Amino acid sequence: MREYYHSELDEVVNQLVTMSDSVQVAVRGATNSLLSASLVDAEHVISGDVRVDAMHDQLETQCFNLLARQAPVAGELRIIVAATQVIADLGRIGDLAAHVAETARRRYPDKAVPEILEDSFHRMSEVGEAMIGKAGRTLADRNLEEARSLVDDDDEIDRLRSDQFRALVSPEWTYGVEKAVDTALLGRYYERIADHAVAMGRRIIYIITGDAPEGENWPTT
Amino acid sequence: MREYYHSELDEVVNQLVTMSDSVQVAVRGATNSLLSASLVDAEHVISGDVRVDAMHDQLETQCFNLLARQAPVAGELRIIVAATQVIADLGRIGDLAAHVAETARRRYPDKAVPEILEDSFHRMSEVGEAMIGKAGRTLADRNLEEARSLVDDDDEIDRLRSDQFRALVSPEWTYGVEKAVDTALLGRYYERIADHAVAMGRRIIYIITGDAPEGENWPTT
Repeated sequence: MREYYHSELDEVVNQLVTMSDSVQVAVRGATNSLLSASLVDAEHVISGDVRVDAMHDQLETQCFNLLARQAPVAGELRIIVAATQVIADLGRIGDLAAHVAETARRRYPDKAVPEILEDSFHRMSEVGEAMIGKAGRTLADRNLEEARSLVDDDDEIDRLRSDQFRALVSPEWTYGVEKAVDTALLGRYYERIADHAVAMGRRIIYIITGDAPEGENWPTT
Repeated sequence: MREYYHSELDEVVNQLVTMSDSVQVAVRGATNSLLSASLVDAEHVISGDVRVDAMHDQLETQCFNLLARQAPVAGELRIIVAATQVIADLGRIGDLAAHVAETARRRYPDKAVPEILEDSFHRMSEVGEAMIGKAGRTLADRNLEEARSLVDDDDEIDRLRSDQFRALVSPEWTYGVEKAVDTALLGRYYERIADHAVAMGRRIIYIITGDAPEGENWPTT
């Protein structure tokens, strides 16, 4: 029974890695839909979010059943509790990718983001995707250093977002109010995607060490 | 021992109600800072968020200890697991209230929101505060009907937000890009506050009935 339990816990961790791969792909697809005004990509991400939500619900139930079936000991309990939080983070990243794709769809055939900010959004997405990948991998191989480096990655996201704000309110902004509002909200979505990856890192450090890192660089959600 | 355990669980629920009161007050204070350009209110909400975060961390630890100390039976386990999620929702509402207050502080002594939208934000806050209060109360008195009505409250928030968007992109918008961006992001913060209240309602229904309501009106976070 004990061994069966262990393999079920491993199975949950494996499925979390699969889920993190799925949302990483969703973020990439959403950014593609945004920067190429691709309706196909946008629809694909939006309909795919239903599958991410289903994974979320299924994994949440599995964690609950693991808790209910028998009293897990300290280390296992920590993994299960942290896993339920990581599931929530991944679910939210999927939702945020869908928000990006919805914005792209709303503006199609136009592009939601002006050309001068395309590189900035491309880079934001690239860093965000890498962060999700890193968080997913550290979950599987328990690499503390990688988990800790997520805070530095997040600094680049914050810098990119500040640059975007400066562009929006500069006198050279000639793209009007609607594009400014889209840009600001899109920047917020990517910022939150990165925040959730950092939160995942925090929970993984907690799984490994038993202590959660603290301080304002480590958002709880 | 069993009775001691029960009273500790009641204690967690009581503290959750206290925490929901605190974030309700924070949302009110944040809206006041925004609509009255009150620096004192803004600072109060921003510094108060540290206390909300401390409550979050302390309650999260308490729930973990309850899980670790002994294997809770089905109904209790459900309460503890749902409680950890409600704690996360309340923590996020606190963060979002702080974001509203930070925007007010950034624009001080100007007002971030143009006068024509003050009523709209006032109403958004009023509905949001009522939703948090309702979610907190249903947690204590397990009132299913109140929890279910949170979805209808959320519809009003969505309508208000649509109206705000229409105002932003109308030709009568003469307040420039910066105010448009502030307004769009502020609307997003209030929308998320309401989403978290709905999610709390969902988890409370789960505590009471053992089944989580489904469908897109019931966000998981």
